[in-house]
Amino acid sequence: MKVTVLSGGVGGAKFVLGLQHCEEVDQLTAIVNTGDDFRHLGMHISPDIDTLLYTLSGQANATQGWGREGESWNFMAALKALGGPDWFNLGDGDLALHVLRTQRIEQGHSLSVVTADLAKAWGIGASVLPMSDDTVATWLETDEGALPFQSYFVERQCRPITSAIRFEGAVDARPAPGVLQSLADADAVFIAPSNPWLSVDPVLAVPGIADALRETSAPVIAISPLVGGKAVKGPTTKLMAELGINADNEAIAGHYAGLISGLLHDSADAPPLSTPARSTATLMTSLDDKVRVARAAIVFAEALKA
Amino acid sequence: MKVTVLSGGVGGAKFVLGLQHCEEVDQLTAIVNTGDDFRHLGMHISPDIDTLLYTLSGQANATQGWGREGESWNFMAALKALGGPDWFNLGDGDLALHVLRTQRIEQGHSLSVVTADLAKAWGIGASVLPMSDDTVATWLETDEGALPFQSYFVERQCRPITSAIRFEGAVDARPAPGVLQSLADADAVFIAPSNPWLSVDPVLAVPGIADALRETSAPVIAISPLVGGKAVKGPTTKLMAELGINADNEAIAGHYAGLISGLLHDSADAPPLSTPARSTATLMTSLDDKVRVARAAIVFAEALKA
Repeated sequence: MKVTVLSGGVGGAKFVLGLQHCEEVDQLTAIVNTGDDFRHLGMHISPDIDTLLYTLSGQANATQGWGREGESWNFMAALKALGGPDWFNLGDGDLALHVLRTQRIEQGHSLSVVTADLAKAWGIGASVLPMSDDTVATWLETDEGALPFQSYFVERQCRPITSAIRFEGAVDARPAPGVLQSLADADAVFIAPSNPWLSVDPVLAVPGIADALRETSAPVIAISPLVGGKAVKGPTTKLMAELGINADNEAIAGHYAGLISGLLHDSADAPPLSTPARSTATLMTSLDDKVRVARAAIVFAEALKA
Repeated sequence: MKVTVLSGGVGGAKFVLGLQHCEEVDQLTAIVNTGDDFRHLGMHISPDIDTLLYTLSGQANATQGWGREGESWNFMAALKALGGPDWFNLGDGDLALHVLRTQRIEQGHSLSVVTADLAKAWGIGASVLPMSDDTVATWLETDEGALPFQSYFVERQCRPITSAIRFEGAVDARPAPGVLQSLADADAVFIAPSNPWLSVDPVLAVPGIADALRETSAPVIAISPLVGGKAVKGPTTKLMAELGINADNEAIAGHYAGLISGLLHDSADAPPLSTPARSTATLMTSLDDKVRVARAAIVFAEALKA
């Protein structure tokens, strides 16, 4: 079957890796959030795409949850010694990715072409597509003022209180080549267990993508990011509280209302009443966990089609 | 005394380090070749300035003769794995210098301001001045066509046969702030034992610098790059042969005719007849060697003044 996933970073990458190990899946496409992309030290950095690329090629650092396995940090040490900005960690090997991508983009190649070439170089069978080749930047309105995503997420460690989120440039952005087609052709569409407000909403903000979810004949299933009423990682529930939203699956399903045909959620949490739901243990620690969650999503999709 | 040195990379840096250890020197200025500067992987790289900065701050890698002590190479390994250009080695720590400099230049700072800040960050007392803040690029006409310096020197390991050398942009370049003043104010001016054609000529090609050598009241002493009729490192004698020049001190003194008042050369080589000369063992392996050569130059300068 053909499967397309809307994905943010770490949680999304784990789920896509699970799908990559399911025999049922012949064709796998990840449409990845680029609202977190930013320029730093002159380099174009695409954190969620990188997380997908590292995870799907078996190079992800499982312990720290981001970056490369076996990474060294001499660049950061030298940068710090020179008084350079050290709030965003760049591993020595990771830098090669950023430097090459930046150079190719400056030569006029699109982010999607560069991403496809990186995926090919690392032998990744899945299609990893940026949501858009146009610049879309996630900004948070907070009690410390308007902050670009990385300033909020990394530099300030999600401490500011958020009142609103916007996606600068989204209105004029076009879906990257292949994005709408992969949604139209899919046998199943999944929304990965990424942060709905920070990681999935930027994807849905690109004109045409939400419509493609409404129009596809495939079932669209969101995997809830909540496990036992909390997010595994990141500021999801803190953010939900600040936005006045209950941290439950009703709210997750409500957020995706009109777009999804089902919600796969953790067994420890109550299902939403508004949306067809199934549950499994959604915490993805081992590869077996990831494959189990991926397979539960596939089985649910097949049930909704029948 | 106030000492100003025209310098290329490794050999020049060793000589300047020797001067830095001479008590007689109160004020030390190095005017450094930037004809080797190039953009690589989107970064502004200034190899000779970097060699000065690393050497004068005690961070130079003595074994390999370039780059930083204790360097790691994970960036290069990752770059190579992605099919990136691997002919120019960039250490993980070294990258911090290139990334920060590139960013600051793109923000509108001049190379001389950025260089001064780097020198300050590393506690270097000497003034390290680029010869110019304008772009001057050394090109070689060879049997493999016209080659920019790094393609000739690093990528092709000096193998092509050179017929001519030119310094693109030199005609319109201005000396960097402080360059002419330091030559006018100096009590002694030295031309370091760098390659006269590839490392010193670009400096002399910047309008105003050769005139400042002719006009300064200070003695101007060149230190010959020949040791036992050969260059310690690099293509000096190969290049001299290709240009139809004898590899002797007469040729070195002749090359600087009208600019220098004396030549300090290695004890193993014959002195030039055309120019006042002194000799010492000029091979600079240990710090003691470097200080001895520096002191011999100072003593010679004082003798010429008397």
